[in-house]
Amino acid sequence: MAKTIMVLGGDGFCGWPTSLHLSDSGNDVVIVDNLSRRKIDVELEAESLTPIASIHSRIATWKDLTGKDISFENVDLANEYDRICDLLLRYKPDAIVHFAEQRAAPYSMKSADHKRYTVDNNVRATHNLLAALVDTETDSHLVHLGTMGVYGYGWAGKSVIPEGYLSVGLETNDGMEMKEILHPADPGSVYHMTKTLDQLMFAFYAKNDKIRVTDLHQGIVWGTQTPQTQLDERLINRFDYDGDYGTVLNRFLMQAAIGYPLTVHGTGGQTRAFIHIRDTVRCVELAIDNPPESGAKPMIMNQVTESHRVRDLASLISKLTGVEIQYLDNPRVEALENTLVVANDKFLALGLNPTTLSQGLMEEVRDIAGKYANRIDSSKIKSVSLWRRHLHDK
Amino acid sequence: MAKTIMVLGGDGFCGWPTSLHLSDSGNDVVIVDNLSRRKIDVELEAESLTPIASIHSRIATWKDLTGKDISFENVDLANEYDRICDLLLRYKPDAIVHFAEQRAAPYSMKSADHKRYTVDNNVRATHNLLAALVDTETDSHLVHLGTMGVYGYGWAGKSVIPEGYLSVGLETNDGMEMKEILHPADPGSVYHMTKTLDQLMFAFYAKNDKIRVTDLHQGIVWGTQTPQTQLDERLINRFDYDGDYGTVLNRFLMQAAIGYPLTVHGTGGQTRAFIHIRDTVRCVELAIDNPPESGAKPMIMNQVTESHRVRDLASLISKLTGVEIQYLDNPRVEALENTLVVANDKFLALGLNPTTLSQGLMEEVRDIAGKYANRIDSSKIKSVSLWRRHLHDK
Repeated sequence: MAKTIMVLGGDGFCGWPTSLHLSDSGNDVVIVDNLSRRKIDVELEAESLTPIASIHSRIATWKDLTGKDISFENVDLANEYDRICDLLLRYKPDAIVHFAEQRAAPYSMKSADHKRYTVDNNVRATHNLLAALVDTETDSHLVHLGTMGVYGYGWAGKSVIPEGYLSVGLETNDGMEMKEILHPADPGSVYHMTKTLDQLMFAFYAKNDKIRVTDLHQGIVWGTQTPQTQLDERLINRFDYDGDYGTVLNRFLMQAAIGYPLTVHGTGGQTRAFIHIRDTVRCVELAIDNPPESGAKPMIMNQVTESHRVRDLASLISKLTGVEIQYLDNPRVEALENTLVVANDKFLALGLNPTTLSQGLMEEVRDIAGKYANRIDSSKIKSVSLWRRHLHDK
Repeated sequence: MAKTIMVLGGDGFCGWPTSLHLSDSGNDVVIVDNLSRRKIDVELEAESLTPIASIHSRIATWKDLTGKDISFENVDLANEYDRICDLLLRYKPDAIVHFAEQRAAPYSMKSADHKRYTVDNNVRATHNLLAALVDTETDSHLVHLGTMGVYGYGWAGKSVIPEGYLSVGLETNDGMEMKEILHPADPGSVYHMTKTLDQLMFAFYAKNDKIRVTDLHQGIVWGTQTPQTQLDERLINRFDYDGDYGTVLNRFLMQAAIGYPLTVHGTGGQTRAFIHIRDTVRCVELAIDNPPESGAKPMIMNQVTESHRVRDLASLISKLTGVEIQYLDNPRVEALENTLVVANDKFLALGLNPTTLSQGLMEEVRDIAGKYANRIDSSKIKSVSLWRRHLHDK
C-alpha cells in the first residue's frame, strides 16, 4: 500500500537513491534537505566524481521519465524546529527516513569547528525531530541510519556483533541472570559518537513517548548506481573520493583510475563491514514495511552484507586494475588489526539478497571511476584530518 | 597546594557553595556562569525561598569577610565557544568543575521548547568544553556533575548500583568472559538523558584525546547551607521549592512550613538517593584532589550518602512538623515502588564522613523553611509538568 514517506537528507548519497526507490515502489515521497552536503563540497573545494544534477533537475527528470512526483522541502532540521512541526502536520508521514546527519568521520575530526558542527547538527536534527513528533502528536515510524561504528571493535573477533542488543550475564542477589542491554558504545570519531548519542535519544523517546524507531547500523556503503539512478545521467548518484567523504573503497577506485598507488593507512588489517547502495535502498524499504510495535524499544538491524580487510580490498582493486599498493601511517586512534563478524540475520530473514563485491566491483571500476576519471582533482588524493590532540604526543 | 579551579555554573545551588568551599581551602577560584538559573526563575515567576544576593554582592561579601578573591566571568558555555578558549588560555585551570547544565527533570519535560533548550544547553556546554580543551591543548582535570538518574531503576533491588562501570559476563568464542562496561543508561527525563549523552562524550574524549575526566553521579542534594554560606546572609545559598526545581524534600519542607499537606506522587514507594550539600562540596574537593591518569577512562564515583523512600521522607517531616500527608497521581513514567542500593565506597575510602538526614533535617525545618516561610508563594505548591505525549493515552 502506498505510504507517505519523508526522506530527511534525501538529496545525499544514500538519501537520493532511497527516495527514487521508494517513489518507484509507489510511495508518496517528500525529500527534506538543506543541501548541506553540497555546501560542504563548496567548503572543501571538492566535487562528486559523477556529475550530479541539482535537486530540482533531479526531481523534474524523475517526473519526466516516470510521471511520479517527489516533493522537495529545503529545511534545516537542526535550526528550523517550527518548520519541522509544520511539515509533520502538513504531510502526516507514515514513515520518516532520517539520513540528515553529517556523516564523514574525517570531516568530523578536522578541527574544533567541524567537531562542534557535527555534534550540533546531528544531535539537534535528531532531537528536534523526536520533540516535534511528540509535540505534533504524529505517529510516524522513524527509520534512522545509524552506523556499525557505534559498536567499536573492542570485542570483535571474540564474539559476533549482535543486532543492537547484547545479552549479558549480571550478578544479582539471586545469582547470575541474563539481561539484554543496548550494545556498549565505542565510537572512533566525533561523527560516530553522535550516532551513539542518537541511540540514547531514541531509547528514551521510545520508552517515554512510545515513538516507533528503527535504527539501521549500516556498514560502509559502496557502489554508486541503483536501477533508478541509472535511468538518466541527470539522476546519477554521488561518488565521493576526497579525503573527508570518500570511503576507503572509493578512494582506491579513484587512485586506480589515475594510476596512483592505492594508499593503505596502517597495516590495512582493519576489517570493515560493507553494503552495496542497491542493498541499502532495499533494506530501508524492508525496515519501513516492518515497523516495531508502539511502546517497543527501538528495533535495531545491522545493515551490512559482507566484511573485508582494507588490504584485501586494495589487493582486489590492484588485481582488477594493475595499480600497486602503498602503505602509510594511520591518523586514526584504532587497532591496527581486527576481525569483525557481524550478525545480519534480520535483513536476510526479510528476504534481502545481497550484491557482493565480487559481483559489483568491476562495474564501479569501469562505469564510474573509469568513465569519469577526467573529472578527478588530484589534490584530493591525500587524507588530511588529524585525529587527536597533540598534547600527549609531544 | 593551591590550584586554579574554574567552577562552571558557580552561581548555582551546588556551584556557589562549592566555589566558596574551594576558595576557603586556598584555591584560586574562577566562577563562570551566564546566570541562566536566575533567568529561569524570572521565566517561571519563582524565587529561591532564601533571599540570594547577586553574584557580585556575593563575591564582594566573601572578599570582605575572608580577604579571598573569586573571579567571575559571565560566559554562555553553550553559545560562546571562542570565549571558552580564551578563558582556558588565560586562567590555565588545574581543574574545571562543570555544573553548567539545566538540571531540573520536570523543567526539561514542560514543553518541546524546554526539552530542546535542555538538550542544546547541556550537550553544547559539555561538548564545547571538551573541544576547547583539545583545541587549546589545556591539560585540566574535568570534574563533572552527573546524576544517579543515568542508571535508571531497572535492575535496582536485584543488585547494587556500581560506581559507573558494570562487570558483565559475555559469551565469546572462548566461553563466558567477564568485561567491564559503562553501566547501561536508563534515564527517566530529557534532563537525565542529557547526562547519559555527556557520559558518552566523556568516554570518547578520554579515549581519543586523553582528557582526564571525573564524573560524579550525584543523588538528590538536600540541605541549604555550608559553613561558608552561613557566614553572612549575603552568602546564603538557594532553596528551590517550585514544582520544577524544588526537590521532593524541599517541597515537603515548604509545604510543612505553611501547613499544607505533604503531597506524595504515586505510592511514595520510589526510593531515591540523597546527599547533603555540605557533603557535595567535600566530594567535589576530594574528586579534584584525586584525578584519574591521563589516558584512563573517565573515573566515575557515586556522590550519594543514603537512600530513602519518598513516603518515609514525608513521614519524617510529618513527624517533625505535625503536617499530614496527601497522595496524588504520579506524572512521571516510572515504577511505583523500587528499592535502591548504591555503592559509594570510593568517597568513603577517600575519607568522606556523611551528614545524615536524621542529623540535618531539623536545621532545614527551623533555619530555612521556618525562618523564610513568609516568602513562600503558595501558587508554587503544585507540580505541573506533563511527562509524556498524550497520543497513546487517549
